[in-house]
Amino acid sequence: TRDDFDLAAVYVSDAQYNRNIFFETTPEAIRLYLLYNHWVLHIVVYAVIVVDLALAIFEDPAVIPLPIWATTLIELVCLAAFVVRLVHYAKVISRERFWKDPKNICIICVILLSLTDIVIYGSLKATGYTAVRWSRVLRPLLLINITEGRQLRRAFRSIRNALPQILYVFLLFMFSLLMFSLMALKLFGKKGLTTTDGDAYFTSYLEIVFDLYVLVTTANSPDIIMPAYNSSVYFAVFFIIYVLINTYIFMSVFLAVVYNNYKKYLKEEVRQLVRANRHKMARAFGVLQEWKGGEGPVVTQASWNQLVRLVQPDISNAHRELLWSVSDNNNEGCIGKVAFVQLADLLNMTVIVVKSRPHPLQTSLPSLYLSSPSQLVCRMVRHRWFVYAFDFIILVNAVFIGLDEENPLIANAEWAFLALYFLEILLKLYTFEPKAFFSRHEFWNWFDTLIVVSALIATIINSVVKSSGGYTSRQILDIVFILRVLRLIRVVDSIQRFRAIINTLVRIGPTILTFGQLIVVVYYIFAMVGMELFKGKIRFFDAESTDPDREFCGNPLLKNSLFAKYNYCKNNFNDVVSSFILLLELTVVNQWHDILFKA
Amino acid sequence: TRDDFDLAAVYVSDAQYNRNIFFETTPEAIRLYLLYNHWVLHIVVYAVIVVDLALAIFEDPAVIPLPIWATTLIELVCLAAFVVRLVHYAKVISRERFWKDPKNICIICVILLSLTDIVIYGSLKATGYTAVRWSRVLRPLLLINITEGRQLRRAFRSIRNALPQILYVFLLFMFSLLMFSLMALKLFGKKGLTTTDGDAYFTSYLEIVFDLYVLVTTANSPDIIMPAYNSSVYFAVFFIIYVLINTYIFMSVFLAVVYNNYKKYLKEEVRQLVRANRHKMARAFGVLQEWKGGEGPVVTQASWNQLVRLVQPDISNAHRELLWSVSDNNNEGCIGKVAFVQLADLLNMTVIVVKSRPHPLQTSLPSLYLSSPSQLVCRMVRHRWFVYAFDFIILVNAVFIGLDEENPLIANAEWAFLALYFLEILLKLYTFEPKAFFSRHEFWNWFDTLIVVSALIATIINSVVKSSGGYTSRQILDIVFILRVLRLIRVVDSIQRFRAIINTLVRIGPTILTFGQLIVVVYYIFAMVGMELFKGKIRFFDAESTDPDREFCGNPLLKNSLFAKYNYCKNNFNDVVSSFILLLELTVVNQWHDILFKA
Ligand code: NA
Repeated sequence: TRDDFDLAAVYVSDAQYNRNIFFETTPEAIRLYLLYNHWVLHIVVYAVIVVDLALAIFEDPAVIPLPIWATTLIELVCLAAFVVRLVHYAKVISRERFWKDPKNICIICVILLSLTDIVIYGSLKATGYTAVRWSRVLRPLLLINITEGRQLRRAFRSIRNALPQILYVFLLFMFSLLMFSLMALKLFGKKGLTTTDGDAYFTSYLEIVFDLYVLVTTANSPDIIMPAYNSSVYFAVFFIIYVLINTYIFMSVFLAVVYNNYKKYLKEEVRQLVRANRHKMARAFGVLQEWKGGEGPVVTQASWNQLVRLVQPDISNAHRELLWSVSDNNNEGCIGKVAFVQLADLLNMTVIVVKSRPHPLQTSLPSLYLSSPSQLVCRMVRHRWFVYAFDFIILVNAVFIGLDEENPLIANAEWAFLALYFLEILLKLYTFEPKAFFSRHEFWNWFDTLIVVSALIATIINSVVKSSGGYTSRQILDIVFILRVLRLIRVVDSIQRFRAIINTLVRIGPTILTFGQLIVVVYYIFAMVGMELFKGKIRFFDAESTDPDREFCGNPLLKNSLFAKYNYCKNNFNDVVSSFILLLELTVVNQWHDILFKA
Repeated sequence: TRDDFDLAAVYVSDAQYNRNIFFETTPEAIRLYLLYNHWVLHIVVYAVIVVDLALAIFEDPAVIPLPIWATTLIELVCLAAFVVRLVHYAKVISRERFWKDPKNICIICVILLSLTDIVIYGSLKATGYTAVRWSRVLRPLLLINITEGRQLRRAFRSIRNALPQILYVFLLFMFSLLMFSLMALKLFGKKGLTTTDGDAYFTSYLEIVFDLYVLVTTANSPDIIMPAYNSSVYFAVFFIIYVLINTYIFMSVFLAVVYNNYKKYLKEEVRQLVRANRHKMARAFGVLQEWKGGEGPVVTQASWNQLVRLVQPDISNAHRELLWSVSDNNNEGCIGKVAFVQLADLLNMTVIVVKSRPHPLQTSLPSLYLSSPSQLVCRMVRHRWFVYAFDFIILVNAVFIGLDEENPLIANAEWAFLALYFLEILLKLYTFEPKAFFSRHEFWNWFDTLIVVSALIATIINSVVKSSGGYTSRQILDIVFILRVLRLIRVVDSIQRFRAIINTLVRIGPTILTFGQLIVVVYYIFAMVGMELFKGKIRFFDAESTDPDREFCGNPLLKNSLFAKYNYCKNNFNDVVSSFILLLELTVVNQWHDILFKA
């Protein structure tokens, strides 16, 4: 029946996309489940999460301040969207499973806590008290616990799994740090050494522990070493042994432990995934199976065709027939269970169909397109010297970009380069079939066209603004500059080896994206806590400001500190953007001890 | 015959120690070859190399100056030793093979060039000219090219093998760096920004390239970012993207390429080694084989026993019989080729023979040792609370070390701790069989005893010196302090997990040693070149010095430089020890741009 096919199709597509939801098998639930998995709803969920997280930009302490009623309204809409999504999910799976899943409980808790917080915050603010929006820390939990956060959860699980081993390495590292600090205290504490600033050097145990810890990250090298080294060459040996053991050996062991654990865990996860997918495919087979004389249960080609059309409506007939011939390689008109369970993997394979379709101009204007001058152009464009010529033009362009902008010759040359790049794209579209040129796998064609067209538009806008208003818009000009330089990246595609490296990078893109989300989650939580604790503690003053507080970032505690001297005032927790940049700087490690001291 | 057994034994021990020398098979050559591989000669060769390399400490620019005739004499002795070793090698292998091996040619060239350099340098110095000892750069080549440098050559080969791939990643990285620099020039060059020192910010292309290159190593973060970030938050995004792409993504790709290449190459090397070893064992079999009724060639147990006794004279009878029973598992009294070729691997296996030998006191004084008070002591020492008690003593000791030394109570407590530790060792020796206690695998027992005994000796010397001369020797006191802290490390052994991590570290020890040699080779070459180019350019002045040059390290070029301000004067190429420390600091990466500018 139709319902059977729907059920089987759901099983197959669950296996195809590694979904692990134990939906109810009633026709109604299946229809709701299909809707639940619709790509539009996935996008809506992610959009709602982005809006919810981005609210931090507009809430106090804000980058762009909005009134409280506006941000609260937006947040309520977001929370309502999550409630709707959760109710939808509850209708798909059994009640028992719904309440047993900690993900759902977590989402419900976050929603309830957020509502409580909004009410408390609103009433406190209305009565003039100070209040803290503490529930903002919980927002990233939504990103982790939604159905779509499968990859992110896996990443967190793998980290949690490696924690015990990492902890032991860390404890051993701490032990080594404490031992070395004790040794440093005994060796240098009584020598009366001083740092360049004239402070006592290595006299307090806790300070030594901190300094040596910073040395592991190499952030205060070689300043921390110099006083001892100046006193005796042999003391340098102490620091060398310290850095060798704690920076190099420990970090190697640390990385090895993390890597090995991650690999081991990932292998186990993949094994479970394969088993679950096989199970789903077996169920789909069970729904569609028929009995054929003595050979056990099979699925006929007709059922199989109908199933594949349901699972992947946009599949071409040729592609579907190819898949069938792979499954039914004995040409029996039906397949057994073993061949059937491969279907999900087969559908996931990318089949590049090379169609040598004629150019549309060849069909519409054959006499013109096939004439010998036109064919000469086509041969020219296909020639490898055409590529070399444009690589050369790019190099010349790079030199021109480096030269002074205000020279009118160079400013006008930009138009020539733009015209040349545009001509190149037009010539290629004339020579190659446009649909093939802009097919999904032609990354560089897309990149090229996008950059050149945007550069053309931005340059035109820029000159229009300039000639009408008489002034140059700084933002537009910056964009024009960036686009101009990005155009040069195209040269990478000409070199085979570079293309291979870039392709590798593109392939690991999804993994990077998952870890990007993970980092956003962690940063967001830290930023929210940091903002509540430190907002307004440090102020940034414009270069033109004559405020006397400018000397110490508006915080008397920072008078004469390195922090103020190095002009680090903008590294603060005053809004969410500053917080993120600060956290990134701390991750990059250098001078972090100076930045950290401001708190 | 005796010669046959000698030949077979040489093949087996070559397979056992992975030697790949195609020696002549005459009895005379074999005897010379056995001598060539004697462990005493290996140690002599390494000692000669260490002396030769260490000459840099005594040659101009010297740490400890010695007259030229003395260093030249030592160097000539070293070179003579290498000549003798090479002549010995030439007598072991065929003349043709000797001259075809680039390693031998390289050693001969180094020796000849060194002699030439010594003659030129000596005559120039004698006639009062300035001269450069350029051949010192070649000394590390001896370490690479001697027969014993097999592991080191393998490490260099694996690096050379990965070079092409690394080069392409590096080129792509350079391209990215140049692109970002161009973008930075266009974005910031005309904005009139200044650094904290008031210098123009990002106006010259080459300076931008250098600054952004330094940023990849994170050494100038966040200082280089601040001017742009202070001007606009959006510019911080530029730097974030830059660091993400160039520090994280490129470094990951870089490490992945190096690791994969290294692994691939190592696998190939190991495969070749296994093949070569099997070949050697097959030859040994060919020498000793006998024909036994219809079963093909075999080696009898008698021949096998004689061979094993030749290869490993110190092997116990029990161990040898165990190996034979593993090889001849059907108990036929002779083994075929397949079983025979395993011999080298079997000999490499560590067999721990657990002998429950009675304690020597039990045999000499049984009535006393087996008396009930004596047995109570033994049971007490074996109890786990004995370990806990001493862990607790160590912790208390750690606190005492951290306290002030000049308090007489604490100074005397040190004697109590020493006595306790000494008592612990004596008790353990009383309870456990001393030979088992000090067996080769009991790393911690050795460590403990060594540290406690040295601490005892050093403390006694220290108090003798103090009470006789009335003053404390700083060097002896430093050693006492270090030994005192090292004693605390013992606590690591009590925690199972820590022991596992330490054991892993001990196991990768040989690999670390090989890479250590590799780094010494590279550093030595750089240090020699650096010393000839920069010696005396920067001078270090004592803190008490009143010389006006002290302000700028004796080099007017460094007036007002950060280098002089941070008191980095001791980071120079004035002698080989300073050079090594400087190169290590540059490897540790931080502030390297400041250090580098001094040249
Ligand atoms: Na650093």
